[in-house]
Formats: sequence, C-alpha cells, structure tokens
Amino acid sequence: MFVLSSPSGAGKTTMSRALMAEDNEITMSVSATTRRPRPGEVDGVDYYFVSPDQFQSMVQENALLEWATVFGNRYGTPRAPVEAALAAGRDVLFDIDWQGTQQLQQTDAASDLVRVFILPPTLAELERRLTSRNTDHPDVIAGRMARARDEISHWGEYDYILVNDDAETCLNEIRAILKAERLRRKRQLGLAGFVRGMLGE
Amino acid sequence: MFVLSSPSGAGKTTMSRALMAEDNEITMSVSATTRRPRPGEVDGVDYYFVSPDQFQSMVQENALLEWATVFGNRYGTPRAPVEAALAAGRDVLFDIDWQGTQQLQQTDAASDLVRVFILPPTLAELERRLTSRNTDHPDVIAGRMARARDEISHWGEYDYILVNDDAETCLNEIRAILKAERLRRKRQLGLAGFVRGMLGE
Repeated sequence: MFVLSSPSGAGKTTMSRALMAEDNEITMSVSATTRRPRPGEVDGVDYYFVSPDQFQSMVQENALLEWATVFGNRYGTPRAPVEAALAAGRDVLFDIDWQGTQQLQQTDAASDLVRVFILPPTLAELERRLTSRNTDHPDVIAGRMARARDEISHWGEYDYILVNDDAETCLNEIRAILKAERLRRKRQLGLAGFVRGMLGE
Repeated sequence: MFVLSSPSGAGKTTMSRALMAEDNEITMSVSATTRRPRPGEVDGVDYYFVSPDQFQSMVQENALLEWATVFGNRYGTPRAPVEAALAAGRDVLFDIDWQGTQQLQQTDAASDLVRVFILPPTLAELERRLTSRNTDHPDVIAGRMARARDEISHWGEYDYILVNDDAETCLNEIRAILKAERLRRKRQLGLAGFVRGMLGE
C-alpha cells in the first residue's frame, strides 16, 4: 500500500500518472467523491463521481477504507478493489490526503503502508503552479493555499519526504522507494521457501 | 550505517567496490583482521592487518564496534573512523557477517542501521564462483561452503534481501535502497527547519 500525499499542485497527480503508465505491478486506487467533475475528468478513471446519498450508503455499508470531507465535498477509498488487488499480490497506489493516510494507518494493513509526502520547493512556487492551471477562481486558489499549509503541517506523519524541485528527479526518487520497498524481506513472500530449497531443508 | 552481508562469493565485495567508486556520500568501514593478507590485498584498504596481540588490545580498549572469530582469525570494525564519518554526516558501508551485524544491532546506533543480505542464486553457483577464484585449496572451499550455509541461515535478520543473479541488476537494487533510505524523513536532518521556513513559523 503505497500512499502519495502532497498539497494540491505539488505534483502528486503527475507522479501517479507517470507511475501507472510505466509500472505493471501497481494498481491505482480510484477514490469516490461527491464533488462535480472538472473539465476532462472521467468517471471511474479520475474518480468515481457519486451523489451524497450514494456516498453515505458506502460509509454505512463499510465499503470505504477511509473517507474525509474537504471544502464540503466527501472523498473516500472504495474497499473492494483495494482488497482484490492486494490479494492478487499487486501493489496499490493511493493519491490521498493526510486524513486518509491517518485512517489507513489505523487499519490492520498499517504495517504494509509506505507513506510518501511530496513538498513543493516553496509556497510561492506552489501558488504559481496552482494559478497557471487557470481552472480555478482566485478565491478558490486562496482556499487551496490555506489547505496546502494544513496538508504540509502533517509532513511528520510520513515515512519518506520528497521536495519536488524537478519532476523527473522526484519521479526517480519515487521509483527508488518503490524498488527498495519491494526488496524488503517481509514483502518477498516466496523467500522463505527459496532459502529452504537452497539449503536443502 | 549501511550493512552488506553475504556468503563469501555472492558478490558483496564487488558491490562494495562499485558503490565506493561512484557514491561520494559514503565511506567504507575498513575492518581489522588477524588473518594474513591474500595476494593483492592492501593494508589500510582491504583490511588493517594486525597481530593477535594488537587485536586483543583493540578489544580491551573498546576500540572496536563489533568483532568476531572466523576460521580461527579475528575480524573487527574500528570504532573511531566510523564515528568520525557519521559525525560528519556521511553514510558508512560495512562489509561484515551476521555476527557483526547482530552486534551493531545491539548498539545505540541500531535505529540508523540498514541491513542488506545478498543471496547467491544457488549454492552450486556459489561453489562455482569460489572455485573459479583459484585462490584457495579444495578443503578451504569446503569450509567456505559450510560457512556459507551458516551465513545464509541468518537471512531472516536483515531488512532487505537481494538475489545476485546478475551483478548489474543487484547493484541497481543496492543503489535504489541507498537512495530510498536517504529520503526517509528521519534521515533528512534539515527538513524540520526547511518546512518551518516554508510555513513562516
């Protein structure tokens, strides 16, 4: 369970898409949300777009691994696809915020969690990136900057911290973390048998 | 503190030399030993070659971080160069066996330890590599194979396990582990100040 968190605009979505395009062992967890789709967003790819009633049903049926409310919209991780991917031996990538990460940390799967936080080089650079998207009103951007400060204040709850000065460098760092974490003894499930076979036991 | 352990012949020394040649942030810990130099080994580079009396003095003066006896020869890690390198913010590479690794695990620095074990693809391949060196008698090789089995039986005491099927693949895996471990929050000592500065606190 590989969590990428960052304030909006720090590069998390770019990194997630690049990873998904090149790495065949990882499945993206697609969140459910009650917010409206932005231009270009595809239902079932970027998010599952659901009504507030549908979201509330998912909460009540214990169908979400974690959920949170941000700017009045609800976001959550559907449980079934994550559990199916993990059972099939795949890794799962979560593009979630500190609230969701805290909730995953409280589940049985916490020992399998790898938490990566991406910082922007500066807040000024973050604001520049948010403004250049041109998709949001200035007051929305001000709200996002306040939220970015809140998100950043939770950096101490993550295992790895990256500073996204340069997208390719940052992506290489994420690749190294994934590669290393897959080499951890506890994640190489066939290893005990391999060594027993080698020693003829 | 980055530990590479493996049975003799599994590629540990090749990997260590390659890392030292390319990575400017890491210092190799040179062990002291009472065994005789092999052809080509240089005092102060491959080992510090010392007499049994000198070794015993180092033990008594608490000048060794860890030590062990293998085939009647003593091996140990001089403490001062390691502490100096760590104090200067450098990483230190240890080419030591499971006994030394266990002893480092019992020091104050245990939380900083990254333990990597390199397995050969098979014992037959290990024996082939040992034989092709042509530096040892057959009975010495039989002894090394017995010792290799003992070393391998301690694989469960390491954080990361690599199988050295191919030297370049194995080296890339070591590079990824080093890169990832350096990105751990707890190892980025300037990070708290960086984030405080960013948030204007």
